[in-house]
Amino acid sequence: MVDPVLTNPRHYSVVFENERVRVLEYRDHPGEETTPHDHPDSVMITLSAFERRLIDGDHSVDVEMPSGAARWLGAQSHSGHNRGSTDTHCIFVELKEPTDTPRAGTSVLGPTAS
Amino acid sequence: MVDPVLTNPRHYSVVFENERVRVLEYRDHPGEETTPHDHPDSVMITLSAFERRLIDGDHSVDVEMPSGAARWLGAQSHSGHNRGSTDTHCIFVELKEPTDTPRAGTSVLGPTAS
Repeated sequence: MVDPVLTNPRHYSVVFENERVRVLEYRDHPGEETTPHDHPDSVMITLSAFERRLIDGDHSVDVEMPSGAARWLGAQSHSGHNRGSTDTHCIFVELKEPTDTPRAGTSVLGPTAS
Repeated sequence: MVDPVLTNPRHYSVVFENERVRVLEYRDHPGEETTPHDHPDSVMITLSAFERRLIDGDHSVDVEMPSGAARWLGAQSHSGHNRGSTDTHCIFVELKEPTDTPRAGTSVLGPTAS
């Protein structure tokens, strides 16, 4: 588990944490990138509209999000690159409990509708 | 469990649901109220600044929130009243898994920092 709060502290910060969740705030500016890191099963809530590329090895996906949206982000590893003209600002609600259903092999890069 | 999506469908809607979470969007206008309903352990993310009173029987708490904030909302029953001059707009990430630690008796009305 590569924790983005440790690897990319200029972009990720902890809003609060308890026994069930850890809540992160993410901010960047156009052109900025993160290094590879891991997310557990999370819900992402956008506080700005943004466009970014998510990269996992030789696989990548381009994501365009409106402000005020909520998306599922299944457990995954990636790095991100703000390729748009607006700041990225979003909240991640990380889920702590292990699920009974391993998601290995079914992981989808980037956010999904559910 | 009194589900606010059923009792207050004009204000609460389901953004998405999967095996780990249900995500709700809440919207109201100044002066509007909800009827009593239940929330499971949730994270609330505000998409507007708002002021509201949360009422549980003869106990109430006044809440003033900025936009873009994330707060823990422990499992609780309440009704809400928008007493401010701005619309309320927020997202609730409801957690589905039961916790090992019963929260009955330790519930706090309204959002808390963690």
